[in-house]
Amino acid sequence: MAQEAEYIKAHYSKFEQLLTQFVEIRSVSNADDDMTACIDFLKTTFEKLLNAKVTLVKTAGLPSLVAQINGTSNHTVLFYGHYDTMPGGTRDLWETDPFKLTLKNARYFGRGVGDNKGQLMAQILGIYTYIQLHGTLPFNVAFLVEGEEERGSVNLKTTVSSLHETLLKQVELAVVVDGSINQNDEHVVRLGNRGLFGFELITKTGENDNHSGNAGNIMTSAAIKLVAVLRKLYDFDEQRVLIPNFYQGVPQGKEIKTDLLEALPFDKEQISSQMGLKTIPDKMEFYQRLMYQPTFNIAGINGGYTGKGLKTVIPHQANVKIDCRLVGNQNIEIIRKGLETVLAAEIQSGEVSINCLGAIPPSTSDLSKSLIDTFAAIIKKATGSVVIEPVMAGTVPNYVWTEVLKVPVVTIPYANYDQHNHAPNENMTKKDFIDGIKISYELVNSLFK
Amino acid sequence: MAQEAEYIKAHYSKFEQLLTQFVEIRSVSNADDDMTACIDFLKTTFEKLLNAKVTLVKTAGLPSLVAQINGTSNHTVLFYGHYDTMPGGTRDLWETDPFKLTLKNARYFGRGVGDNKGQLMAQILGIYTYIQLHGTLPFNVAFLVEGEEERGSVNLKTTVSSLHETLLKQVELAVVVDGSINQNDEHVVRLGNRGLFGFELITKTGENDNHSGNAGNIMTSAAIKLVAVLRKLYDFDEQRVLIPNFYQGVPQGKEIKTDLLEALPFDKEQISSQMGLKTIPDKMEFYQRLMYQPTFNIAGINGGYTGKGLKTVIPHQANVKIDCRLVGNQNIEIIRKGLETVLAAEIQSGEVSINCLGAIPPSTSDLSKSLIDTFAAIIKKATGSVVIEPVMAGTVPNYVWTEVLKVPVVTIPYANYDQHNHAPNENMTKKDFIDGIKISYELVNSLFK
Repeated sequence: MAQEAEYIKAHYSKFEQLLTQFVEIRSVSNADDDMTACIDFLKTTFEKLLNAKVTLVKTAGLPSLVAQINGTSNHTVLFYGHYDTMPGGTRDLWETDPFKLTLKNARYFGRGVGDNKGQLMAQILGIYTYIQLHGTLPFNVAFLVEGEEERGSVNLKTTVSSLHETLLKQVELAVVVDGSINQNDEHVVRLGNRGLFGFELITKTGENDNHSGNAGNIMTSAAIKLVAVLRKLYDFDEQRVLIPNFYQGVPQGKEIKTDLLEALPFDKEQISSQMGLKTIPDKMEFYQRLMYQPTFNIAGINGGYTGKGLKTVIPHQANVKIDCRLVGNQNIEIIRKGLETVLAAEIQSGEVSINCLGAIPPSTSDLSKSLIDTFAAIIKKATGSVVIEPVMAGTVPNYVWTEVLKVPVVTIPYANYDQHNHAPNENMTKKDFIDGIKISYELVNSLFK
Repeated sequence: MAQEAEYIKAHYSKFEQLLTQFVEIRSVSNADDDMTACIDFLKTTFEKLLNAKVTLVKTAGLPSLVAQINGTSNHTVLFYGHYDTMPGGTRDLWETDPFKLTLKNARYFGRGVGDNKGQLMAQILGIYTYIQLHGTLPFNVAFLVEGEEERGSVNLKTTVSSLHETLLKQVELAVVVDGSINQNDEHVVRLGNRGLFGFELITKTGENDNHSGNAGNIMTSAAIKLVAVLRKLYDFDEQRVLIPNFYQGVPQGKEIKTDLLEALPFDKEQISSQMGLKTIPDKMEFYQRLMYQPTFNIAGINGGYTGKGLKTVIPHQANVKIDCRLVGNQNIEIIRKGLETVLAAEIQSGEVSINCLGAIPPSTSDLSKSLIDTFAAIIKKATGSVVIEPVMAGTVPNYVWTEVLKVPVVTIPYANYDQHNHAPNENMTKKDFIDGIKISYELVNSLFK
């Protein structure tokens, strides 16, 4: 057994105790829970375990924490995590108390254990193990831990901007430890992610609803107007977005890393079944659609009477919530302008209004081939296997590292695929928690060797 | 003062007492209230006041009542009304107790006073007054009073069918006393009404919702599918229904009674304001659209996340409720078949299912010109003015008279325009209650003179 594995084993009850303490401090960002207690616990932990210099950073919302640990070279690597969690949700749907850490069937159950407390604690403990065994770190490490990830990281960009020339000035590489590993329980190196532009369209066709008999053919249903407007944004036959310049920046040709796609695992039957779909495309098409093509999704549509049976009403207001996943270099400002252009007449007349519901650019890391290989080797050494994912289909705000801090970013999630984050019975397997500690140790050990 | 007016005045406290008793028996059909007490009260009233032969008619739901009063000629006229009411609704929104008849500002307030108890009682009292003054009726009168109008008259067609060859065999003309007079407080003769075909489309694109990141471009939003399907039913540019044969039977040319439309009152500003619309078409266009053109209305649309902000979900199910008002000889069966034809592929694949939510054919009376003039003269004599409306924009099940009983039908509402039926503070003006008694008297007096 390697020395770090032995050390982890010998001190595991202490490690587990730290995880327990962290999870049991409620830190639901949307409830303004015990956020101060939580960040204080983290501050003490960074100071005591890693001898870090800790700075609490005020934001317009909940504070962030920066921890700096000096190493023996000039390299500086930033690790990102968050200390806030989603709400516990319906207690009855949990098999254990969401705010007690419970070990059951080799999994730790508790709100936030997977997203992101277990992953963050594994990083701290991996680096702690390194320091215990080797005295000092081979390079400088900084942590940025925010408290509003579950609010959509609404102040992260501003925070990173404000620290760009100060605490984070020396950073040359960002490592994000969040998300889930793949369905085969293989750890992954994630090089990019899709972005998100979410917006709501509200149509209004009068000051009040009317009876569909008394006003039918005089007043237009706001839901009819909504469908008419949607047709200006999307070609429902060709399944193509009609917003001007929408597709500008979508990867083409060699920008699509087919070699990495080919190396990804794919179990058509398992994925179809999990998605509840009769069929899904074949492997290469499947991954290209998820990683290199933008989406136009209606996440919600609502207007008029939606109860049982029929109420013969002409609704005066209706709305639709659309989310577009963005890829490559698609630009939200260009798309937003295109949207406003195509609906200019309706906006002008007051028939349509638009609310932005989310804007996170896609992120593609500029990680060099050799650095990708290094990360892959580190993970393989620590866990036995590794998969390189060129793009994550979902969205994380990694653009703050590439666009604001202007450094490459890599995402290395530690939590199991079925962590059930944001849902009842959130969990992290004991194996993945320990693997996370090992990866963190190995990152420090090998990154700049 | 005419003798009937004097009689009404002299006996008004008794008349008001009868109205009070009737309104104060709760008869909410959707609550299975004191329905028996209500129909028993009516039976006694018909027997005592009009010396009628009363038959209670069982239905699959609540019973109907047939009252027959013999006259001196062979003519037989049927009057239709209903003894059930809508629920009281939220008590706090009422200024008076909905189940106490309260006279306030020259209006009677109470649930059902306008719809339809006050109108039905006015008929009984008008005929009663005639009998008191003249001894016998000049023709046979039959009443059909149902108890499920507020449930959509679900058993009326069956009831009328079953009585066609028995109690209602001699009927040659149906008079429906329900609805509201016009906004200028003028009594109206209504010759027809639009029909209604209501249906729900449900789209299904998977077995469960998916995350819009993880499955975006693999799974189709059921709301996207819904819009795609709607485009097969309706041309949103031309505002034209695409269901095959939909427009078959829509009145053309001389079938449109422009002379009657020209005689209708029209206050553009008042109507726009009441409908909450910036503008409405000019008079002739306005009435043609409401009376002679079918509608395609989205009464409700729903799918996915409809709360605040954005939830990045791909909904697997969505639905839309559509109601089409029908005119002239449009045929619901033909339209239903057209709908199923145009969506055959989607129904076959299970992506779309259709539920019928309502089917009431339009009704156009075959009333002769001379009979229309007679009705107009009767109302003018009783109330001082009259307006002939060729078609009511809303829907009532008058097809049971024209199609099942195969007799002409005319609708003569007694209640004021602002009766607030189905809403809090339902009322009938004292003037309109008395006018109703006078019209009923005059109908018996002059119809076959």
